[in-house]
Amino acid sequence: MSDLIPQLPSLADAALALRLQIRIDQKTKPLGALGRLEALMLRLGLILGSETPALLEPQLMVFAADHGLAARGVSAYPSDVTWQMVENFLAGGAAVSVLARQHGLALTVVDAGVRHEFAPRPGLVVAKIAAGTADALVGPAMSADQCATAIAAGKNLLRQRPGNALLLGEMGIGNTSAAALLLARLAGQPIGACVGRGTGLDDGQLAHKTALLGQVLERHAQASEPLAALAAFGGFEIAMMVGAVLQAALERRVIVVDGFIASAAVLVAARLAPAVLERCVFSHCSNESGHRLMLQALQAEPLLDLGLRLGEGSGAALAWPLLVSACQLLAKMASFASAGVSQA
Amino acid sequence: MSDLIPQLPSLADAALALRLQIRIDQKTKPLGALGRLEALMLRLGLILGSETPALLEPQLMVFAADHGLAARGVSAYPSDVTWQMVENFLAGGAAVSVLARQHGLALTVVDAGVRHEFAPRPGLVVAKIAAGTADALVGPAMSADQCATAIAAGKNLLRQRPGNALLLGEMGIGNTSAAALLLARLAGQPIGACVGRGTGLDDGQLAHKTALLGQVLERHAQASEPLAALAAFGGFEIAMMVGAVLQAALERRVIVVDGFIASAAVLVAARLAPAVLERCVFSHCSNESGHRLMLQALQAEPLLDLGLRLGEGSGAALAWPLLVSACQLLAKMASFASAGVSQA
Repeated sequence: MSDLIPQLPSLADAALALRLQIRIDQKTKPLGALGRLEALMLRLGLILGSETPALLEPQLMVFAADHGLAARGVSAYPSDVTWQMVENFLAGGAAVSVLARQHGLALTVVDAGVRHEFAPRPGLVVAKIAAGTADALVGPAMSADQCATAIAAGKNLLRQRPGNALLLGEMGIGNTSAAALLLARLAGQPIGACVGRGTGLDDGQLAHKTALLGQVLERHAQASEPLAALAAFGGFEIAMMVGAVLQAALERRVIVVDGFIASAAVLVAARLAPAVLERCVFSHCSNESGHRLMLQALQAEPLLDLGLRLGEGSGAALAWPLLVSACQLLAKMASFASAGVSQA
Repeated sequence: MSDLIPQLPSLADAALALRLQIRIDQKTKPLGALGRLEALMLRLGLILGSETPALLEPQLMVFAADHGLAARGVSAYPSDVTWQMVENFLAGGAAVSVLARQHGLALTVVDAGVRHEFAPRPGLVVAKIAAGTADALVGPAMSADQCATAIAAGKNLLRQRPGNALLLGEMGIGNTSAAALLLARLAGQPIGACVGRGTGLDDGQLAHKTALLGQVLERHAQASEPLAALAAFGGFEIAMMVGAVLQAALERRVIVVDGFIASAAVLVAARLAPAVLERCVFSHCSNESGHRLMLQALQAEPLLDLGLRLGEGSGAALAWPLLVSACQLLAKMASFASAGVSQA
């Protein structure tokens, strides 16, 4: 399985970083006055290897799949909502559809393993590993082969797409459970701190979810390596995102991370190839209670904090104009010298 | 002076609020899953009086003026930077120029009292009250007549502009001092909590600024009413923003508030006509240390928290796409019924 995981060089480039910092500091503004946008400028410049990085043909890929655990009451919604929402993405009625149109993001929906047969149409890629993962309380959510196949599929899908930016989105009833399990195992956090209300559990349902996920963790006590944990807990959409992230990182694309589940895929990818994180921009901190902990584990500072908890890539799409702004400010703002403005 | 201050009706409309909330809750997403964007949808709907509010011809107005106090070393930059930055705004090289182009915002720069004669040109409105305010340590920064004239000018300027949204921006070396003084006086806060580093003071300069502003507050101990405080502390750009805000509120435009100085103008306007706040969207919490306190005084929850401290309207422009998203999601997302998605 080792050829699945690319060797990622570090993007550290002291000379380029210095040129970028000088460029930022010569802009007509007080030093540091653009706050975290300046760190974003530096990051985008280093990822794209340019003092004036430009974002080209951004791809918003929404990976969808079903989860065996969903039958055990870990979600407020029935599993059918996964395929129904895929139809909604494709029909243009979901939040992420509206936001992708607003920002000119190419939207692709990937069936990574939805329990439904979709009619083919533009914008949909069927790359189904199986009709949903198995019940992780009984055995691994997927086999090691399925896991490797999903990762390879994610890499291939990404490779076929143009542009230099990937926005991650996902859909899968039950997938906050898989993300919480991955966080608990890979970051060594107690399950109670990783579990949240997902799409809207009440207190009793949350207690049930927490207890159930505790049992799942025990059932897979040996699954401590990233790929073993991914296979044990699922899901197919997360595994395919891991592949897309690894490939995007290898190609030095900007990876715009959405919420809790997309971050779980990045957590797995970063445990396999730590330099992935240099290629990531974390779009937002979601209201799902484990996400803040996840971001800490990734040493990530998200751009937005709007209490979102929708997934789909909606947070990544909402943050997208800030990335565009960072590039445009870097390229187009005048310097003190060019504008004839006195310095401090 | 009483006809300066419009009677502002409250926008509270329980029937419309209910229709908006039902519309939001029927969208294909878990209840509340769009977090603070949902509160933003509700606010924009109530301001614009529609279940499907649409933002039209947004006007970004940057009010610029000089400050008498600037000669006393309250800023890291010389006063000449005010007019130099006005030139930079008009030439398209400032941060706000770049962001306005990115988001299709009509940019108007208003000379409210800059110590410089500008050649006329498109995008510049000369409405100079005087060539900078007087030294507030010696007397009031402006006379009551000047204050009223500036407010009336701001109202007129706004009235002449199309559209239903105003984004507030400003430029004026020394104007964090005026904003800090207004916060201290109108919100009853100790000056030490209101003063910040502005464009980049060091510790010694900050101590000097704090001590000086303490003396200015003592000098104008009687200036407790909003208009008296505004006249005492300045500046012309803040007074003109007060007028623009009052007029925009009267016309039920959406008012997008930028950082510390724009918020100070809203603080004055809200003390004169509290229902102003129902028309405001606070774009960001700046890194200027008094701004968090100011936002608390206004009971405002800003959209962004990016450590910006630039002014110019840059934060308002950066947050603008979130307002557009809120409107588009409200108008274009499918409902559970229309998309055939199962509910929880």
